[in-house]
Amino acid sequence: MEKRVLSATKEIEVRFSEVDSMGIVWHGSYAKFFEDAREEFGRKYNLGYLRIFGEGFYAPLVKLDFNYKKPLVYGDRLAVEVEYIPTEAAKICFSYRVYAGEGEQRSLMATGSSMQVFLDKNYQLVWGNPEFYEAWKQEWKVFEE
Amino acid sequence: MEKRVLSATKEIEVRFSEVDSMGIVWHGSYAKFFEDAREEFGRKYNLGYLRIFGEGFYAPLVKLDFNYKKPLVYGDRLAVEVEYIPTEAAKICFSYRVYAGEGEQRSLMATGSSMQVFLDKNYQLVWGNPEFYEAWKQEWKVFEE
Amino acid sequence: MEKRVLSATKEIEVRFSEVDSMGIVWHGSYAKFFEDAREEFGRKYNLGYLRIFGEGFYAPLVKLDFNYKKPLVYGDRLAVEVEYIPTEAAKICFSYRVYAGEGEQRSLMATGSSMQVFLDKNYQLVWGNPEFYEAWKQEWKVFEE
Amino acid sequence: MEKRVLSATKEIEVRFSEVDSMGIVWHGSYAKFFEDAREEFGRKYNLGYLRIFGEGFYAPLVKLDFNYKKPLVYGDRLAVEVEYIPTEAAKICFSYRVYAGEGEQRSLMATGSSMQVFLDKNYQLVWGNPEFYEAWKQEWKVFEE
Repeated sequence: MEKRVLSATKEIEVRFSEVDSMGIVWHGSYAKFFEDAREEFGRKYNLGYLRIFGEGFYAPLVKLDFNYKKPLVYGDRLAVEVEYIPTEAAKICFSYRVYAGEGEQRSLMATGSSMQVFLDKNYQLVWGNPEFYEAWKQEWKVFEE
Repeated sequence: MEKRVLSATKEIEVRFSEVDSMGIVWHGSYAKFFEDAREEFGRKYNLGYLRIFGEGFYAPLVKLDFNYKKPLVYGDRLAVEVEYIPTEAAKICFSYRVYAGEGEQRSLMATGSSMQVFLDKNYQLVWGNPEFYEAWKQEWKVFEE
Repeated sequence: MEKRVLSATKEIEVRFSEVDSMGIVWHGSYAKFFEDAREEFGRKYNLGYLRIFGEGFYAPLVKLDFNYKKPLVYGDRLAVEVEYIPTEAAKICFSYRVYAGEGEQRSLMATGSSMQVFLDKNYQLVWGNPEFYEAWKQEWKVFEE
Repeated sequence: MEKRVLSATKEIEVRFSEVDSMGIVWHGSYAKFFEDAREEFGRKYNLGYLRIFGEGFYAPLVKLDFNYKKPLVYGDRLAVEVEYIPTEAAKICFSYRVYAGEGEQRSLMATGSSMQVFLDKNYQLVWGNPEFYEAWKQEWKVFEE
Protein backbone atom coordinates (compact mmCIF):
# COMPACT_ATOMS: atom_id res chain seq x y z
CA MET A 1 0.00 0.00 0.00
CA GLU A 2 1.26 3.33 -0.99
CA LYS A 3 1.94 5.85 1.75
CA ARG A 4 3.26 9.17 0.72
CA VAL A 5 5.18 11.64 2.81
CA LEU A 6 3.68 15.07 2.22
CA SER A 7 6.05 17.87 3.08
CA ALA A 8 7.05 21.40 2.20
CA THR A 9 9.85 23.81 2.99
CA LYS A 10 9.46 27.50 3.74
CA GLU A 11 12.46 29.82 3.63
CA ILE A 12 12.30 32.65 6.13
CA GLU A 13 14.55 35.58 7.02
CA VAL A 14 14.69 36.56 10.67
CA ARG A 15 13.21 40.03 11.24
CA PHE A 16 15.03 42.50 13.53
CA SER A 17 11.92 42.77 15.72
CA GLU A 18 11.94 39.01 16.30
CA VAL A 19 15.26 39.14 18.15
CA ASP A 20 15.00 39.67 21.89
CA SER A 21 17.21 41.40 24.42
CA MET A 22 19.29 38.25 24.87
CA GLY A 23 20.29 38.71 21.21
CA ILE A 24 18.48 35.58 20.07
CA VAL A 25 15.21 35.05 18.25
CA TRP A 26 12.46 35.24 20.87
CA HIS A 27 11.00 31.76 21.40
CA GLY A 28 7.45 32.96 20.69
CA SER A 29 8.44 34.04 17.17
CA TYR A 30 8.72 30.40 16.14
CA ALA A 31 4.91 30.19 16.17
CA LYS A 32 4.99 32.52 13.13
CA PHE A 33 7.69 30.44 11.42
CA PHE A 34 5.64 27.25 11.90
CA GLU A 35 2.52 29.00 10.61
CA ASP A 36 4.37 30.26 7.53
CA ALA A 37 5.48 26.66 6.91
CA ARG A 38 1.92 25.37 7.34
CA GLU A 39 0.69 27.90 4.80
CA GLU A 40 3.50 26.93 2.39
CA PHE A 41 2.29 23.34 2.73
CA GLY A 42 -1.23 24.67 2.20
CA ARG A 43 -0.23 26.35 -1.05
CA LYS A 44 1.55 23.22 -2.28
CA TYR A 45 -1.22 20.75 -1.43
CA ASN A 46 -4.25 23.07 -1.43
CA LEU A 47 -4.93 22.89 2.31
CA GLY A 48 -4.26 26.44 3.49
CA TYR A 49 -6.33 28.70 5.77
CA LEU A 50 -8.19 30.27 2.83
CA ARG A 51 -9.14 26.89 1.30
CA ILE A 52 -10.40 25.57 4.64
CA PHE A 53 -12.31 28.82 5.28
CA GLY A 54 -13.80 28.64 1.80
CA GLU A 55 -15.08 25.13 2.57
CA GLY A 56 -16.90 26.51 5.61
CA PHE A 57 -14.51 25.72 8.44
CA TYR A 58 -11.96 27.14 10.78
CA ALA A 59 -8.93 25.00 11.70
CA PRO A 60 -7.58 26.35 14.97
CA LEU A 61 -4.64 24.77 16.78
CA VAL A 62 -5.33 22.54 19.78
CA LYS A 63 -1.73 21.51 20.40
CA LEU A 64 1.59 23.18 19.68
CA ASP A 65 5.01 22.37 20.98
CA PHE A 66 8.57 23.51 20.43
CA ASN A 67 12.02 22.11 21.14
CA TYR A 68 14.64 24.81 20.85
CA LYS A 69 18.02 23.21 20.17
CA LYS A 70 20.21 26.08 19.06
CA PRO A 71 19.44 29.79 19.14
CA LEU A 72 18.67 31.71 15.97
CA VAL A 73 20.19 35.16 15.60
CA TYR A 74 19.61 38.21 13.40
CA GLY A 75 20.85 37.57 9.90
CA ASP A 76 19.98 33.87 9.97
CA ARG A 77 18.07 32.52 7.02
CA LEU A 78 15.85 29.64 8.07
CA ALA A 79 14.41 26.71 6.20
CA VAL A 80 11.38 25.27 7.98
CA GLU A 81 10.50 21.77 6.84
CA VAL A 82 6.97 20.75 7.63
CA GLU A 83 5.69 17.21 7.29
CA TYR A 84 2.06 16.10 7.37
CA ILE A 85 1.43 13.35 9.93
CA PRO A 86 -1.50 11.21 8.76
CA THR A 87 -4.39 10.41 11.09
CA GLU A 88 -7.84 8.89 10.73
CA ALA A 89 -9.33 11.52 12.98
CA ALA A 90 -10.70 14.90 11.92
CA LYS A 91 -7.37 16.53 12.71
CA ILE A 92 -4.49 18.10 10.81
CA CYS A 93 -1.14 17.14 12.35
CA PHE A 94 2.26 18.45 11.35
CA SER A 95 5.82 18.04 12.54
CA TYR A 96 8.45 20.73 11.95
CA ARG A 97 12.22 20.95 11.61
CA VAL A 98 13.92 24.36 11.54
CA TYR A 99 17.32 24.57 9.85
CA ALA A 100 19.76 27.47 9.50
CA GLY A 101 22.87 27.66 7.38
CA GLU A 102 23.77 26.18 4.02
CA GLY A 103 25.63 23.12 2.82
CA GLU A 104 28.08 21.91 5.45
CA GLN A 105 26.95 24.60 7.89
CA ARG A 106 23.36 23.44 7.74
CA SER A 107 22.24 22.84 11.30
CA LEU A 108 19.01 21.73 13.01
CA MET A 109 17.96 24.62 15.23
CA ALA A 110 14.52 23.59 16.48
CA THR A 111 11.74 21.04 16.08
CA GLY A 112 8.09 20.96 16.97
CA SER A 113 4.62 19.68 16.19
CA SER A 114 1.10 20.97 15.93
CA MET A 115 -2.43 19.63 15.79
CA GLN A 116 -5.51 21.34 14.39
CA VAL A 117 -9.16 20.44 14.57
CA PHE A 118 -12.10 21.65 12.52
CA LEU A 119 -14.74 24.08 13.76
CA ASP A 120 -17.74 25.10 11.73
CA LYS A 121 -18.62 28.77 11.28
CA ASN A 122 -20.51 28.69 14.60
CA TYR A 123 -17.29 27.63 16.32
CA GLN A 124 -18.67 24.14 16.97
CA LEU A 125 -16.22 21.27 16.93
CA VAL A 126 -16.59 19.01 13.90
CA TRP A 127 -16.25 15.40 15.02
CA GLY A 128 -16.06 13.56 11.74
CA ASN A 129 -13.80 14.36 8.82
CA PRO A 130 -15.21 17.17 6.66
CA GLU A 131 -16.04 15.87 3.20
CA PHE A 132 -13.40 18.00 1.52
CA TYR A 133 -10.78 16.71 3.94
CA GLU A 134 -11.68 13.07 3.29
CA ALA A 135 -11.38 13.79 -0.40
CA TRP A 136 -8.07 15.55 0.20
CA LYS A 137 -6.65 12.58 2.12
CA GLN A 138 -7.65 10.24 -0.69
CA GLU A 139 -6.38 12.53 -3.43
CA TRP A 140 -2.92 12.66 -1.88
CA LYS A 141 -2.95 8.95 -0.94
CA VAL A 142 -2.46 9.63 2.75
CA PHE A 143 -3.02 6.48 4.82
CA GLU A 144 -3.14 6.34 8.57
CA GLU A 145 -0.24 5.03 10.61
CA MET B 1 -19.57 77.54 25.22
CA GLU B 2 -18.60 74.49 27.09
CA LYS B 3 -15.75 72.40 25.63
CA ARG B 4 -14.71 69.38 27.55
CA VAL B 5 -11.38 67.61 27.40
CA LEU B 6 -12.02 63.89 27.24
CA SER B 7 -9.05 61.82 28.29
CA ALA B 8 -8.00 58.57 29.91
CA THR B 9 -4.86 56.99 31.26
CA LYS B 10 -3.78 53.39 30.75
CA GLU B 11 -1.07 51.85 32.91
CA ILE B 12 1.05 49.29 31.12
CA GLU B 13 3.99 47.08 32.08
CA VAL B 14 6.61 46.47 29.42
CA ARG B 15 6.72 42.81 28.37
CA PHE B 16 10.08 41.07 27.94
CA SER B 17 9.20 40.23 24.34
CA GLU B 18 8.65 43.93 23.55
CA VAL B 19 12.32 44.75 24.20
CA ASP B 20 14.60 44.49 21.18
CA SER B 21 18.22 43.57 20.73
CA MET B 22 19.29 47.18 21.40
CA GLY B 23 17.88 46.66 24.92
CA ILE B 24 15.05 49.16 24.41
CA VAL B 25 11.36 48.71 23.73
CA TRP B 26 10.99 48.09 19.99
CA HIS B 27 9.39 51.13 18.37
CA GLY B 28 6.61 49.07 16.80
CA SER B 29 5.41 47.94 20.25
CA TYR B 30 4.10 51.45 20.90
CA ALA B 31 1.23 50.74 18.50
CA LYS B 32 -0.05 48.25 21.10
CA PHE B 33 0.39 50.77 23.92
CA PHE B 34 -1.60 53.39 21.99
CA GLU B 35 -4.30 50.82 21.20
CA ASP B 36 -4.53 49.81 24.87
CA ALA B 37 -4.98 53.50 25.73
CA ARG B 38 -7.66 53.91 23.04
CA GLU B 39 -9.55 50.97 24.48
CA GLU B 40 -9.20 52.35 28.01
CA PHE B 41 -10.75 55.57 26.68
CA GLY B 42 -13.37 53.40 25.03
CA ARG B 43 -14.24 51.74 28.34
CA LYS B 44 -14.45 55.09 30.11
CA TYR B 45 -16.57 56.87 27.50
CA ASN B 46 -18.28 53.91 25.83
CA LEU B 47 -16.50 54.23 22.48
CA GLY B 48 -14.40 51.07 22.29
CA TYR B 49 -13.99 48.58 19.43
CA LEU B 50 -16.82 46.36 20.69
CA ARG B 51 -19.29 49.26 20.99
CA ILE B 52 -18.47 50.51 17.50
CA PHE B 53 -18.70 46.98 16.09
CA GLY B 54 -22.04 46.50 17.84
CA GLU B 55 -23.33 49.65 16.14
CA GLY B 56 -22.47 48.13 12.75
CA PHE B 57 -19.13 49.73 11.99
CA TYR B 58 -15.40 49.15 11.90
CA ALA B 59 -13.10 52.02 12.88
CA PRO B 60 -9.72 51.32 11.30
CA LEU B 61 -6.80 53.71 11.58
CA VAL B 62 -5.99 55.95 8.62
CA LYS B 63 -3.15 57.88 10.29
CA LEU B 64 -0.74 57.01 13.07
CA ASP B 65 2.44 58.74 14.13
CA PHE B 66 5.00 58.45 16.88
CA ASN B 67 7.66 60.69 18.35
CA TYR B 68 10.10 58.69 20.45
CA LYS B 69 11.79 61.01 22.93
CA LYS B 70 13.43 58.66 25.44
CA PRO B 71 13.79 54.91 25.20
CA LEU B 72 11.71 52.59 27.37
CA VAL B 73 13.43 49.58 28.91
CA TYR B 74 12.37 46.30 30.51
CA GLY B 75 10.96 46.93 33.96
CA ASP B 76 9.46 50.29 33.03
CA ARG B 77 5.85 50.90 34.02
CA LEU B 78 4.17 53.23 31.56
CA ALA B 79 1.23 55.56 31.87
CA VAL B 80 -0.24 56.36 28.47
CA GLU B 81 -2.45 59.44 28.49
CA VAL B 82 -4.83 59.62 25.58
CA GLU B 83 -6.85 62.72 24.74
CA TYR B 84 -9.77 62.92 22.31
CA ILE B 85 -9.30 65.65 19.68
CA PRO B 86 -12.72 66.94 18.56
CA THR B 87 -13.58 67.21 14.88
CA GLU B 88 -16.74 67.83 12.87
CA ALA B 89 -15.82 65.09 10.42
CA ALA B 90 -16.70 61.41 10.70
CA LYS B 91 -13.34 60.69 12.31
CA ILE B 92 -12.02 59.71 15.72
CA CYS B 93 -8.80 61.58 16.53
CA PHE B 94 -6.56 61.05 19.55
CA SER B 95 -3.27 62.40 20.82
CA TYR B 96 -1.05 60.38 23.15
CA ARG B 97 1.60 61.05 25.78
CA VAL B 98 3.64 58.16 27.20
CA TYR B 99 5.15 58.61 30.64
CA ALA B 100 7.45 56.38 32.69
CA GLY B 101 8.50 56.79 36.30
CA GLU B 102 6.69 58.14 39.33
CA GLY B 103 6.59 61.45 41.14
CA GLU B 104 9.76 63.43 40.54
CA GLN B 105 11.10 60.74 38.18
CA ARG B 106 8.04 61.00 35.95
CA SER B 107 9.30 61.61 32.43
CA LEU B 108 7.70 62.07 29.00
CA MET B 109 9.01 59.20 26.88
CA ALA B 110 6.98 59.47 23.68
CA THR B 111 4.05 61.23 22.02
CA GLY B 112 1.87 60.51 19.04
CA SER B 113 -1.49 60.82 17.38
CA SER B 114 -3.97 58.70 15.49
CA MET B 115 -6.99 59.15 13.28
CA GLN B 116 -9.74 56.61 12.60
CA VAL B 117 -12.58 56.63 10.10
CA PHE B 118 -15.76 54.58 9.98
CA LEU B 119 -16.36 51.68 7.59
CA ASP B 120 -19.61 49.79 7.37
CA LYS B 121 -19.67 46.00 7.50
CA ASN B 122 -19.02 45.90 3.73
CA TYR B 123 -15.81 47.84 4.31
CA GLN B 124 -17.27 50.95 2.63
CA LEU B 125 -16.15 54.32 3.93
CA VAL B 126 -18.86 56.15 5.86
CA TRP B 127 -18.77 59.83 4.88
CA GLY B 128 -21.11 61.38 7.40
CA ASN B 129 -21.07 60.89 11.16
CA PRO B 130 -22.79 57.65 12.16
CA GLU B 131 -25.86 58.42 14.23
CA PHE B 132 -24.46 56.85 17.38
CA TYR B 133 -21.31 58.95 17.02
CA GLU B 134 -23.27 62.20 16.64
CA ALA B 135 -25.18 61.27 19.76
CA TRP B 136 -21.90 60.41 21.51
CA LYS B 137 -20.37 63.78 20.64
CA GLN B 138 -23.43 65.58 21.98
CA GLU B 139 -23.63 63.45 25.11
CA TRP B 140 -20.06 64.29 26.08
CA LYS B 141 -20.38 67.97 25.01
CA VAL B 142 -17.57 67.72 22.51
CA PHE B 143 -17.44 70.79 20.26
CA GLU B 144 -15.26 71.13 17.20
CA GLU B 145 -12.14 73.23 17.30
CA MET C 1 10.00 16.01 54.14
CA GLU C 2 8.72 19.38 53.30
CA LYS C 3 7.88 20.08 49.69
CA ARG C 4 6.35 23.36 48.81
CA VAL C 5 4.31 24.20 45.77
CA LEU C 6 5.56 27.49 44.39
CA SER C 7 3.04 29.23 42.19
CA ALA C 8 1.82 32.62 41.06
CA THR C 9 -1.12 34.04 39.15
CA LYS C 10 -0.94 36.75 36.51
CA GLU C 11 -4.07 38.60 35.42
CA ILE C 12 -4.05 39.64 31.79
CA GLU C 13 -6.47 41.48 29.50
CA VAL C 14 -6.60 40.32 25.91
CA ARG C 15 -5.33 43.02 23.51
CA PHE C 16 -7.27 43.74 20.30
CA SER C 17 -4.14 42.99 18.26
CA GLU C 18 -3.91 39.50 19.80
CA VAL C 19 -7.20 38.42 18.22
CA ASP C 20 -6.91 36.87 14.78
CA SER C 21 -9.17 36.83 11.75
CA MET C 22 -11.05 33.80 13.13
CA GLY C 23 -12.14 36.08 15.98
CA ILE C 24 -10.16 34.18 18.59
CA VAL C 25 -6.88 34.92 20.34
CA TRP C 26 -4.11 33.82 17.98
CA HIS C 27 -2.42 30.73 19.38
CA GLY C 28 1.03 32.34 19.26
CA SER C 29 -0.08 35.09 21.67
CA TYR C 30 -0.15 32.57 24.49
CA ALA C 31 3.66 32.61 24.53
CA LYS C 32 3.38 36.19 25.84
CA PHE C 33 0.79 35.20 28.42
CA PHE C 34 3.04 32.40 29.71
CA GLU C 35 6.03 34.74 29.80
CA ASP C 36 4.03 37.36 31.74
CA ALA C 37 3.14 34.59 34.24
CA ARG C 38 6.79 33.50 34.49
CA GLU C 39 7.81 37.07 35.24
CA GLU C 40 5.03 37.40 37.84
CA PHE C 41 6.46 34.27 39.48
CA GLY C 42 9.87 35.88 39.14
CA ARG C 43 8.71 38.98 40.98
CA LYS C 44 7.12 36.90 43.75
CA TYR C 45 10.06 34.54 44.31
CA ASN C 46 12.93 36.68 43.02
CA LEU C 47 13.68 34.56 39.95
CA GLY C 48 12.81 36.86 37.05
CA TYR C 49 14.78 37.67 33.88
CA LEU C 50 16.49 40.69 35.48
CA ARG C 51 17.62 38.73 38.57
CA ILE C 52 19.02 35.89 36.44
CA PHE C 53 20.73 38.39 34.12
CA GLY C 54 22.18 40.21 37.11
CA GLU C 55 23.68 36.92 38.34
CA GLY C 56 25.46 36.56 35.00
CA PHE C 57 23.18 34.21 33.11
CA TYR C 58 20.59 34.00 30.41
CA ALA C 59 17.71 31.52 30.83
CA PRO C 60 16.34 30.81 27.37
CA LEU C 61 13.55 28.32 26.76
CA VAL C 62 14.43 24.87 25.41
CA LYS C 63 10.90 23.43 25.51
CA LEU C 64 7.49 25.02 25.28
CA ASP C 65 4.13 23.42 24.68
CA PHE C 66 0.51 24.46 24.61
CA ASN C 67 -2.83 22.70 24.82
CA TYR C 68 -5.63 24.95 23.66
CA LYS C 69 -8.91 23.75 25.14
CA LYS C 70 -11.31 26.64 24.59
CA PRO C 71 -10.75 29.76 22.51
CA LEU C 72 -10.18 33.13 24.12
CA VAL C 73 -11.90 36.15 22.61
CA TYR C 74 -11.57 39.94 22.80
CA GLY C 75 -12.84 41.20 26.13
CA ASP C 76 -11.72 38.11 28.03
CA ARG C 77 -9.78 38.68 31.22
CA LEU C 78 -7.37 35.84 31.83
CA ALA C 79 -5.79 34.47 34.98
CA VAL C 80 -2.64 32.49 34.17
CA GLU C 81 -1.58 30.21 37.02
CA VAL C 82 2.04 29.16 36.83
CA GLU C 83 3.52 26.44 39.01
CA TYR C 84 7.22 25.70 39.47
CA ILE C 85 8.07 22.03 38.78
CA PRO C 86 11.10 21.04 40.88
CA THR C 87 14.05 19.30 39.29
CA GLU C 88 17.59 18.44 40.34
CA ALA C 89 18.96 19.53 36.99
CA ALA C 90 20.12 23.02 36.05
CA LYS C 91 16.69 23.76 34.57
CA ILE C 92 13.69 25.92 35.37
CA CYS C 93 10.44 24.07 34.65
CA PHE C 94 6.95 25.50 34.85
CA SER C 95 3.43 24.29 34.14
CA TYR C 96 0.64 26.71 33.23
CA ARG C 97 -3.14 26.85 33.46
CA VAL C 98 -5.06 29.65 31.73
CA TYR C 99 -8.49 30.53 33.10
CA ALA C 100 -11.11 33.00 31.86
CA GLY C 101 -14.26 34.09 33.62
CA GLU C 102 -15.12 34.62 37.26
CA GLY C 103 -16.81 32.56 39.95
CA GLU C 104 -19.13 29.99 38.44
CA GLN C 105 -18.14 31.01 34.91
CA ARG C 106 -14.47 30.32 35.60
CA SER C 107 -13.27 27.98 32.89
CA LEU C 108 -9.95 26.31 32.00
CA MET C 109 -9.05 27.63 28.55
CA ALA C 110 -5.52 26.29 27.98
CA THR C 111 -2.59 24.54 29.64
CA GLY C 112 1.07 24.20 28.88
CA SER C 113 4.59 23.79 30.14
CA SER C 114 8.04 25.21 29.62
CA MET C 115 11.63 24.38 30.39
CA GLN C 116 14.57 26.78 30.59
CA VAL C 117 18.29 26.15 30.86
CA PHE C 118 21.10 28.46 31.91
CA LEU C 119 23.61 29.99 29.50
CA ASP C 120 26.50 32.13 30.59
CA LYS C 121 27.15 35.51 28.98
CA ASN C 122 29.11 33.77 26.19
CA TYR C 123 25.99 31.77 25.38
CA GLN C 124 27.59 28.55 26.69
CA LEU C 125 25.33 26.01 28.31
CA VAL C 126 25.78 25.77 32.07
CA TRP C 127 25.66 22.09 33.08
CA GLY C 128 25.53 22.33 36.84
CA ASN C 129 23.16 24.44 38.93
CA PRO C 130 24.38 28.05 39.18
CA GLU C 131 25.21 28.87 42.79
CA PHE C 132 22.41 31.41 43.09
CA TYR C 133 19.92 28.86 41.80
CA GLU C 134 21.05 26.20 44.30
CA ALA C 135 20.63 28.77 47.04
CA TRP C 136 17.23 29.72 45.63
CA LYS C 137 16.02 26.11 45.63
CA GLN C 138 17.11 25.72 49.24
CA GLU C 139 15.64 29.03 50.34
CA TRP C 140 12.22 28.10 49.02
CA LYS C 141 12.49 24.49 50.25
CA VAL C 142 12.05 23.04 46.79
CA PHE C 143 12.88 19.33 46.73
CA GLU C 144 13.17 17.20 43.67
CA GLU C 145 10.42 14.84 42.64
CA MET D 1 25.38 68.88 -9.01
CA GLU D 2 24.57 65.26 -8.93
CA LYS D 3 21.86 64.14 -6.57
CA ARG D 4 21.01 60.51 -6.54
CA VAL D 5 17.80 58.92 -5.38
CA LEU D 6 18.67 55.93 -3.25
CA SER D 7 15.84 53.45 -2.97
CA ALA D 8 15.04 49.79 -2.56
CA THR D 9 12.01 47.54 -2.79
CA LYS D 10 11.15 44.74 -0.40
CA GLU D 11 8.58 42.11 -1.34
CA ILE D 12 6.57 40.80 1.59
CA GLU D 13 3.80 38.25 2.02
CA VAL D 14 1.16 39.01 4.63
CA ARG D 15 1.28 36.51 7.50
CA PHE D 16 -1.98 35.07 8.86
CA SER D 17 -1.11 36.37 12.34
CA GLU D 18 -0.81 39.92 10.97
CA VAL D 19 -4.52 40.04 10.05
CA ASP D 20 -6.82 41.32 12.77
CA SER D 21 -10.40 40.55 13.72
CA MET D 22 -11.67 43.16 11.22
CA GLY D 23 -10.15 40.93 8.53
CA ILE D 24 -7.50 43.46 7.56
CA VAL D 25 -3.79 43.67 8.31
CA TRP D 26 -3.46 45.20 11.78
CA HIS D 27 -2.09 48.73 11.48
CA GLY D 28 0.79 48.01 13.85
CA SER D 29 2.12 45.28 11.54
CA TYR D 30 3.23 47.93 9.07
CA ALA D 31 6.09 48.83 11.43
CA LYS D 32 7.55 45.41 10.56
CA PHE D 33 7.01 45.97 6.83
CA PHE D 34 8.81 49.33 7.00
CA GLU D 35 11.64 47.77 9.00
CA ASP D 36 12.01 44.95 6.47
CA ALA D 37 12.24 47.62 3.74
CA ARG D 38 14.85 49.56 5.72
CA GLU D 39 16.93 46.43 6.08
CA GLU D 40 16.57 45.68 2.37
CA PHE D 41 17.90 49.19 1.72
CA GLY D 42 20.62 48.42 4.25
CA ARG D 43 21.65 45.28 2.35
CA LYS D 44 21.69 47.14 -0.98
CA TYR D 45 23.66 50.18 0.23
CA ASN D 46 25.50 48.70 3.23
CA LEU D 47 23.63 50.67 5.89
CA GLY D 48 21.73 47.98 7.81
CA TYR D 49 21.43 47.43 11.55
CA LEU D 50 24.40 45.05 11.64
CA ARG D 51 26.70 47.49 9.78
CA ILE D 52 25.75 50.38 12.06
CA PHE D 53 26.16 48.18 15.15
CA GLY D 54 29.54 47.03 13.88
CA GLU D 55 30.62 50.67 13.58
CA GLY D 56 29.79 51.17 17.26
CA PHE D 57 26.35 52.71 17.12
CA TYR D 58 22.66 52.07 17.57
CA ALA D 59 20.20 53.81 15.22
CA PRO D 60 16.86 53.87 16.98
CA LEU D 61 13.79 55.55 15.50
CA VAL D 62 12.79 58.97 16.79
CA LYS D 63 9.88 59.52 14.39
CA LEU D 64 7.58 57.14 12.58
CA ASP D 65 4.32 57.83 10.81
CA PHE D 66 1.84 55.95 8.70
CA ASN D 67 -0.94 56.87 6.30
CA TYR D 68 -3.20 53.91 5.64
CA LYS D 69 -5.00 54.41 2.33
CA LYS D 70 -6.45 50.99 1.53
CA PRO D 71 -6.58 47.93 3.77
CA LEU D 72 -4.32 44.94 3.16
CA VAL D 73 -5.84 41.48 3.53
CA TYR D 74 -4.53 37.93 3.91
CA GLY D 75 -3.12 36.68 0.65
CA ASP D 76 -1.84 40.09 -0.41
CA ARG D 77 1.72 40.28 -1.63
CA LEU D 78 3.22 43.68 -0.85
CA ALA D 79 6.03 45.64 -2.42
CA VAL D 80 7.40 48.24 -0.01
CA GLU D 81 9.42 50.95 -1.74
CA VAL D 82 11.73 52.81 0.56
CA GLU D 83 13.55 55.99 -0.44
CA TYR D 84 16.40 57.64 1.44
CA ILE D 85 15.71 61.33 2.20
CA PRO D 86 19.03 63.22 2.38
CA THR D 87 19.82 65.48 5.31
CA GLU D 88 22.90 67.27 6.60
CA ALA D 89 22.09 66.26 10.16
CA ALA D 90 23.19 63.08 11.93
CA LYS D 91 19.92 61.40 11.01
CA ILE D 92 18.71 58.66 8.69
CA CYS D 93 15.41 59.59 7.06
CA PHE D 94 13.27 57.39 4.84
CA SER D 95 9.92 57.63 3.10
CA TYR D 96 7.86 54.53 2.27
CA ARG D 97 5.22 53.51 -0.26
CA VAL D 98 3.39 50.21 0.14
CA TYR D 99 1.92 48.64 -2.97
CA ALA D 100 -0.21 45.52 -3.45
CA GLY D 101 -1.20 43.83 -6.69
CA GLU D 102 0.55 43.44 -10.00
CA GLY D 103 0.50 45.24 -13.31
CA GLU D 104 -2.80 47.05 -13.81
CA GLN D 105 -4.01 45.99 -10.36
CA ARG D 106 -1.03 47.59 -8.67
CA SER D 107 -2.39 49.92 -6.01
CA LEU D 108 -0.87 52.26 -3.40
CA MET D 109 -2.04 50.92 -0.04
CA ALA D 110 -0.09 53.02 2.48
CA THR D 111 2.70 55.55 2.85
CA GLY D 112 4.86 56.70 5.70
CA SER D 113 8.17 58.06 6.88
CA SER D 114 10.74 57.45 9.57
CA MET D 115 13.70 59.21 11.14
CA GLN D 116 16.58 57.61 13.02
CA VAL D 117 19.37 59.15 15.08
CA PHE D 118 22.66 57.68 16.25
CA LEU D 119 23.38 56.59 19.82
CA ASP D 120 26.75 55.31 20.95
CA LYS D 121 27.01 52.06 22.90
CA ASN D 122 26.30 53.98 26.13
CA TYR D 123 23.00 55.10 24.63
CA GLN D 124 24.24 58.69 24.34
CA LEU D 125 22.94 60.76 21.45
CA VAL D 126 25.57 61.42 18.80
CA TRP D 127 25.24 65.03 17.62
CA GLY D 128 27.53 65.09 14.63
CA ASN D 129 27.60 62.66 11.73
CA PRO D 130 29.52 59.49 12.62
CA GLU D 131 32.60 59.20 10.41
CA PHE D 132 31.34 56.10 8.64
CA TYR D 133 28.06 57.86 7.85
CA GLU D 134 29.81 60.92 6.37
CA ALA D 135 31.83 58.56 4.23
CA TRP D 136 28.66 56.69 3.28
CA LYS D 137 26.90 59.89 2.20
CA GLN D 138 29.87 60.85 0.05
CA GLU D 139 30.27 57.39 -1.43
CA TRP D 140 26.67 57.35 -2.65
CA LYS D 141 26.76 61.01 -3.74
CA VAL D 142 23.90 61.99 -1.47
CA PHE D 143 23.54 65.79 -1.29
CA GLU D 144 21.29 67.64 1.07
CA GLU D 145 18.05 69.14 -0.11
